[in-house]
Amino acid sequence: MKITIAQLDYHIGNFEGNTAKMVEAIQKAKGAGSDIVCFSELATCGYPPRDFLEFDDFIRLSDECIQTLCSHAHDIAVVVGAPSHNKNPKGKSLFNSVYFLADGEIKFTQHKTLLPTYDVFDEYRYFEPAKSWEIVEYKGRKIALTVCEDIWDVGTDDPLYTIIPLDEMQKFSPDFIINVSASPFNYDHAKIRIHTVRANVQRYGIPMFYINHVGAQTELIFDGGSIVMSPDGGIHDELPYFDECIRHYNLNEVVAGQKYSEQTKNKIALIHDAIVLGIKDYFRKLGFKQAVLGLSGGIDSAVTAVLAARALGNQNVRVLLMPSQYSTGHSVGDAMALANKLDLPYDIIAIKDIYESFMEKLSPVFGDKPFNVAEENIQARVRGILNMAVSNKFGNILLNTTNKSEMAVGYGTLYGDLCGGLSVIGDVYKTEVYELAAYINKDEEIIPVNSIVKPPSAELRPNQKDSDSLPEYDILDPILYQYIEKRQGPQDIIDMGYDAALVRRILRLVNINEFKRYQTAPVLRVSPKAFGMGRRMPIVGKYLN
Amino acid sequence: MKITIAQLDYHIGNFEGNTAKMVEAIQKAKGAGSDIVCFSELATCGYPPRDFLEFDDFIRLSDECIQTLCSHAHDIAVVVGAPSHNKNPKGKSLFNSVYFLADGEIKFTQHKTLLPTYDVFDEYRYFEPAKSWEIVEYKGRKIALTVCEDIWDVGTDDPLYTIIPLDEMQKFSPDFIINVSASPFNYDHAKIRIHTVRANVQRYGIPMFYINHVGAQTELIFDGGSIVMSPDGGIHDELPYFDECIRHYNLNEVVAGQKYSEQTKNKIALIHDAIVLGIKDYFRKLGFKQAVLGLSGGIDSAVTAVLAARALGNQNVRVLLMPSQYSTGHSVGDAMALANKLDLPYDIIAIKDIYESFMEKLSPVFGDKPFNVAEENIQARVRGILNMAVSNKFGNILLNTTNKSEMAVGYGTLYGDLCGGLSVIGDVYKTEVYELAAYINKDEEIIPVNSIVKPPSAELRPNQKDSDSLPEYDILDPILYQYIEKRQGPQDIIDMGYDAALVRRILRLVNINEFKRYQTAPVLRVSPKAFGMGRRMPIVGKYLN
Repeated sequence: MKITIAQLDYHIGNFEGNTAKMVEAIQKAKGAGSDIVCFSELATCGYPPRDFLEFDDFIRLSDECIQTLCSHAHDIAVVVGAPSHNKNPKGKSLFNSVYFLADGEIKFTQHKTLLPTYDVFDEYRYFEPAKSWEIVEYKGRKIALTVCEDIWDVGTDDPLYTIIPLDEMQKFSPDFIINVSASPFNYDHAKIRIHTVRANVQRYGIPMFYINHVGAQTELIFDGGSIVMSPDGGIHDELPYFDECIRHYNLNEVVAGQKYSEQTKNKIALIHDAIVLGIKDYFRKLGFKQAVLGLSGGIDSAVTAVLAARALGNQNVRVLLMPSQYSTGHSVGDAMALANKLDLPYDIIAIKDIYESFMEKLSPVFGDKPFNVAEENIQARVRGILNMAVSNKFGNILLNTTNKSEMAVGYGTLYGDLCGGLSVIGDVYKTEVYELAAYINKDEEIIPVNSIVKPPSAELRPNQKDSDSLPEYDILDPILYQYIEKRQGPQDIIDMGYDAALVRRILRLVNINEFKRYQTAPVLRVSPKAFGMGRRMPIVGKYLN
Repeated sequence: MKITIAQLDYHIGNFEGNTAKMVEAIQKAKGAGSDIVCFSELATCGYPPRDFLEFDDFIRLSDECIQTLCSHAHDIAVVVGAPSHNKNPKGKSLFNSVYFLADGEIKFTQHKTLLPTYDVFDEYRYFEPAKSWEIVEYKGRKIALTVCEDIWDVGTDDPLYTIIPLDEMQKFSPDFIINVSASPFNYDHAKIRIHTVRANVQRYGIPMFYINHVGAQTELIFDGGSIVMSPDGGIHDELPYFDECIRHYNLNEVVAGQKYSEQTKNKIALIHDAIVLGIKDYFRKLGFKQAVLGLSGGIDSAVTAVLAARALGNQNVRVLLMPSQYSTGHSVGDAMALANKLDLPYDIIAIKDIYESFMEKLSPVFGDKPFNVAEENIQARVRGILNMAVSNKFGNILLNTTNKSEMAVGYGTLYGDLCGGLSVIGDVYKTEVYELAAYINKDEEIIPVNSIVKPPSAELRPNQKDSDSLPEYDILDPILYQYIEKRQGPQDIIDMGYDAALVRRILRLVNINEFKRYQTAPVLRVSPKAFGMGRRMPIVGKYLN
């Protein structure tokens, strides 16, 4: 038996495009003599469709896609994820299902049991969990069909759920497992995914074909890395990350345990490639080609510009250099050096005159109040307006260049440097931004070394440095990581050896700046806990502040 | 037996404040000779605590609050909602529980079964559902304790869940039901709540004490309106909306079916009062006293200013009048008339010079590109900066004045008029804004009639009117309502008699402007479907656009 994995990049709600892509893959699989071709979770409508699922019209379009796929399911079986209807009046009206299409019709569906409802996932918002489990038989083989999370609660000490769906299917003695997934990237997740597939394969002693979604959907980046695993837990194949790929497998070879290559897993390289795909798909799926961003001469905007250039092409990344009276002399020089190096189109607009026109109008209102954050923010917001003016005039998307450390403690100006349609490095701590810069410069100096080595500064008042108001990033970032990624409380973090007053100050800063993050662009998610849809905090909360 | 309902305004994460408030209510109940005092759902930590629930430290503080309440539960029983620990390693680690405290200890807990995970609710994100149901006996009475949603699936044709918890408790023949709730306001909800309580009371033939949370938590406004219902379905009492209230009831009188007053339910009056509470609690809970907002002379900012003045006091609402070269002569006049009427502190800042300083710097970049949305947006963003400058200089919060119709179709400038810490009327359609203005003016002309009767305009280019690019609001709003509140698809709406091309254009506008709403302030929720946490749409979606 020959099985094809089609690891494809779907587009939410683009039924026509998704259907065409799958039909093409079916033809390829037929051409390769495959018996079964497998797509990923909710492939008809794209993942995550979110509240589009509440529209009957949207579900109807998905049903139509399934019918089209049925019409191509001759001489080959098609395994595909899609919503299906709960015919019982009790419970939610949809299931998250895997369909088995053969002989021109829906031969079998198995619904998802374990509905992830944590972090970025909201599945119980839409779906009723399965309460029965069967397998499908095809060409003499018994196949256990599972959807994503259904294989994730095996062999853990603290299972999130109370049922193990494959334990229920095991009584039918399946020959192998197919899992259709939409499992988003984070820099640790590929390893964990392999561990999880292995735990299942070893528990049941049968091979698994694990088909993941690839491609970015706003903030979520699906990295692919689909897995074919032999019954002994060996990786028969791991498909590429961040790329579409169609490959065919001989079941006997998989059972026999033949080994092919596994993908390399370097954290910073993965983050780099994930962000490039994230930018590329955001623009492509919204129908845009060009970006604009402000280049300050600092490391954050430099790294963002390079990632954008790699995603969109250098000529499609327009940069604005907007010095203020507080900018150091080398800021414009460092920014120009990068723009010239990459041949990015750029303009220089000094903001002093505009800033002064604001101050002239505001001086009767401000009276004799001293210079404070108000004046700093005006500068940042003038830059925001200039960036957006270019975005509006030329129809490109402004990229936000704020890093995760700044976003965490609110070191950024709402409607100023926090402007932008997409936050490129908002899930990358400052210390990791340095690692990204080093990775980008590994073969040659692309980002000017001066941008990397100079002390970080917002340059919004004379001789300002980040370290005037924040601890050094190699102290700040680990504290943030414990609080944000690890959800440790203040005492836990203090017990790790950090200064108590500092910990309390940092955690307070994180919490009182929730209002800023509420209004910030979607953040490309590369860590296990990004700001945005996966981290939901009250604004009026009084906890730790 | 005497039962006290304490309908209180909690503050998320403010354990000290919430505990003190409940202890005070316990004393009052004791003073009135009550046997039981009842608080609402998750009263220890406030509702919704969102991802704070993932912090062990946060749960520990809630546990401490329960211990403090226990120490006061002598000569009186305390019914209170709080998280509790799931001791089974399988499943989520918390329950959403109602505690029964008596004789200084936790006498009983019942966990919530039906975990709302739709619209603004995310409870399955945090909680394991109950799988067993018991009742508590106290002073010879058998009491069924339920949490909010657990009473909501009675007698409906299309139940969202598969279990009815009170059916399970019914086998113990309870004498009455206590339900602790945190049920947020929308203009229809009080009616539906009474209907739901009645369906339960009539199904089981016993009275119910329904205790709701009151007070606003960022976008969610809890309206109180706690209910005491007799076994015949008569309303024994309905507590006030939008106010804290402690009342004591004699169980025998409730059983006998004595009637007291029901609250009046006028949609626009409810919206008015809800928004006033929403503003008041947002400021109070964040520790702010003063607001700033831009007053354009139009109806939206006028209504917002009045609501803010009623919430915060007139002297605490500072307004900026910021005419452009495209402002009509009467705009400033109308705005000044309102400011003078309410005695609001105001400043006038003409934006022309600042706008021109931008255009001077941008002209080499823009070249000979014609005037377009870029220039319009610069004007709106200059106003945004000025508003924020005053906010930052004087430490007040900028209020956003955008209405729901504009937010829906993207008729607003990101980082311009969409700036602000809180969207006051972002869940109020333009046609409803007119009703609000009429309600405000019912006794005297507070909002200048001219602001109400003139054609709506953004005044960003000569002689601009909203109707140049949008249909009239009495056509637009019903289409938006069908799509947003009713989740009807395009064909459904066309079938209601609306122009097909118009419907498709409007729905497309809604969907392509998701990116703007993503970055907009939290919206005070007054309808069954507000923008924000209760409506989760993909940005890169291709559906209907």
